[in-house]
Amino acid sequence: MASASLVEKLQLRVRELEEALARERGGGQGQRARIERMSPEVTDSNPYSRLMALKRMGIVKDYEKIRTFTVAVVGVGGVGSVTAEMLTRCGIGKLLLFDYDKVELANMNRLFFQPHQAGLSKVQAAEHTLRNINPDVQFEVHNYNITTVDNFQHFMDRISYGGLEEGKPVDLVLSCVDNFEARMAINTACNELGQTWMESGVSENAVSGHIQLIIPGESACFACAPPLVVAANIDEKTLKREGVCAASLPTTMGVVAGILVQNVLKFLLNFGTVSYYLGYNAMQDFFPTMAMKPNPHCDDKNCRKQQEEYKEKTAAQPKQVVVEQEEEIVHEDNDWGIELVSEVSEEELQAASGPLPDLPKGITVAYTIPNKEENVVAVETVAESEESLEELMAKMKNM
Amino acid sequence: MASASLVEKLQLRVRELEEALARERGGGQGQRARIERMSPEVTDSNPYSRLMALKRMGIVKDYEKIRTFTVAVVGVGGVGSVTAEMLTRCGIGKLLLFDYDKVELANMNRLFFQPHQAGLSKVQAAEHTLRNINPDVQFEVHNYNITTVDNFQHFMDRISYGGLEEGKPVDLVLSCVDNFEARMAINTACNELGQTWMESGVSENAVSGHIQLIIPGESACFACAPPLVVAANIDEKTLKREGVCAASLPTTMGVVAGILVQNVLKFLLNFGTVSYYLGYNAMQDFFPTMAMKPNPHCDDKNCRKQQEEYKEKTAAQPKQVVVEQEEEIVHEDNDWGIELVSEVSEEELQAASGPLPDLPKGITVAYTIPNKEENVVAVETVAESEESLEELMAKMKNM
Repeated sequence: MASASLVEKLQLRVRELEEALARERGGGQGQRARIERMSPEVTDSNPYSRLMALKRMGIVKDYEKIRTFTVAVVGVGGVGSVTAEMLTRCGIGKLLLFDYDKVELANMNRLFFQPHQAGLSKVQAAEHTLRNINPDVQFEVHNYNITTVDNFQHFMDRISYGGLEEGKPVDLVLSCVDNFEARMAINTACNELGQTWMESGVSENAVSGHIQLIIPGESACFACAPPLVVAANIDEKTLKREGVCAASLPTTMGVVAGILVQNVLKFLLNFGTVSYYLGYNAMQDFFPTMAMKPNPHCDDKNCRKQQEEYKEKTAAQPKQVVVEQEEEIVHEDNDWGIELVSEVSEEELQAASGPLPDLPKGITVAYTIPNKEENVVAVETVAESEESLEELMAKMKNM
Repeated sequence: MASASLVEKLQLRVRELEEALARERGGGQGQRARIERMSPEVTDSNPYSRLMALKRMGIVKDYEKIRTFTVAVVGVGGVGSVTAEMLTRCGIGKLLLFDYDKVELANMNRLFFQPHQAGLSKVQAAEHTLRNINPDVQFEVHNYNITTVDNFQHFMDRISYGGLEEGKPVDLVLSCVDNFEARMAINTACNELGQTWMESGVSENAVSGHIQLIIPGESACFACAPPLVVAANIDEKTLKREGVCAASLPTTMGVVAGILVQNVLKFLLNFGTVSYYLGYNAMQDFFPTMAMKPNPHCDDKNCRKQQEEYKEKTAAQPKQVVVEQEEEIVHEDNDWGIELVSEVSEEELQAASGPLPDLPKGITVAYTIPNKEENVVAVETVAESEESLEELMAKMKNM
């Protein structure tokens, strides 16, 4: 067969090149061998010693469990590529990567991709680099846009059946995309599947970002309190002007990837407090946290369905059981006093929060540092009352 | 739509190996050409378009100025390597790297270094990778321990004369080391030279970190309020037990590198609020900020000298001028109400701050979320009174 001989020729060429490269590099070593079991042994050659030390330090009970988890990363750009690298280096069991873009020199102001990869598809370039970094991780990459009808169905299938053991669902979906259409597609899929996921985003001026944990039915989904562009049904493509591109910084994207994967580790390995929402205002080094209840009138019918199921489930649980489980469940209701800052109009922001900082004309920040006393009031108003969310929605739709 | 076929994968591997080999044999193919001037042009091939967009977004007035700055990074480990990569991708003028360690597989749980670099010196491996990422940056690397007598003098010389234009000092020194001895060496050098620097650190349990801006004479130096191990003159080597290693995470180190380089960009390019101190408590997603005045009885005589000079300088300035300069100086005194959380004993912490979180036995966090009302008191006590710092010092020395 012709293709078989082509494969053989290519395999031979790969071997030749690898040997030549190893000779050129002299001192350096080749790819590391696979490691069967994570060991806590403290040797220079053990890539897991500093992670397994989290057990001895009392932070994580069972670090090896990381190998049993599958995470899907949608969008392998400035945030997604670093997210995938961090999970790979932590020794995650399996990674699914989704993207349809190619690497460009214009991406070199962010971490991960290198100039020699320009022109390659992002998922293929990423898989290659990540495999070299940690051959113990399983990779599955899809070079397509998840928002087209066919691809969306395939995306749903892989979330449902692409786990470490084929046929099982993935453990977590991470949204690292740069547009609302893709975020809404992920939201729709996860609401239908009851799939827990985390959202991430960086502002167009590169100095704000956020991460968000969405547990369908339990916390607000992306459609419960949509950004204006989504609520008003505006085609976001019309917002992007010719020849204008968003600013980005490796710092902001590195921080957002870092807090995202930290939240993933806390969620999967059950340590610390998992954040429902964590914002990053780089101009002022302010990091607001909040938790949002789902909107009972959410436009997504599957979100409303998940809310009903969640209500029934929690109502059916006897109180005693809830108390016993408290230490196990890392993502419980916000009764530990997490601060809430609302993303509302500038007037409301100014009334509810601290004074707007002295910024150059035309610059806005996603969050301001709230006033101490008023902040307490803001928590009660926005966190407890479902009306305020709806009012906000109604207001946006009337704009 | 489906994942890449075997032939495609092999072709990709051949191409990457050929490019890697070409680079290894003396650059050429894979490496991008040098770029004479930073352009805002929005094309796929412009590696600076997303950074220059910061000007159009109104964030930075003169982004090109980044090319005129020199930064020295001391310690090229989990934080320092990512710090150097971010600065390289941002297009910094010149980087000086100092480290004496070799890359090991045990470092693979952090970003940047790759398994095939195991055995190479960290500064050489880093320089090779960074030059490929951005050939516009100038690199100067030193493979030595800065704390020995001879090396320390050479280190001081390079800080004084190793700027972009030989003979001029560097603009900023970044401490990304993992021990107090090296931090004290950097502190001593910078106090003597009046050199502004930034400190960074990650805790041994991998779930806390911080960055700190030190302007000799103006803000507290590392010796003004030293950690117990330094104040009590304990040899830290005796604290490290055989076969025990610190835990580390790519997430925490990525976040610390991100907030460090963000602070560097804000400081050098004059935008946003530069933080004097920013902490990161990963267990609770809490980020305390504070500012500390220098200790007039600091053990370092050069710190005391710098304090005198700073006092004279500010006293000599007529009040009007100070007001006019306010918008220019990004690192002014703390009168914008930044929160202060003291690093004191657990009892004091509990009294001054919020309740300690429910953590596994034996775990401590570097910071807790302060109680709303009591926090105001804490700011006054620790920020305003110099006595509390000295009391703390005296207490530590008596231990």
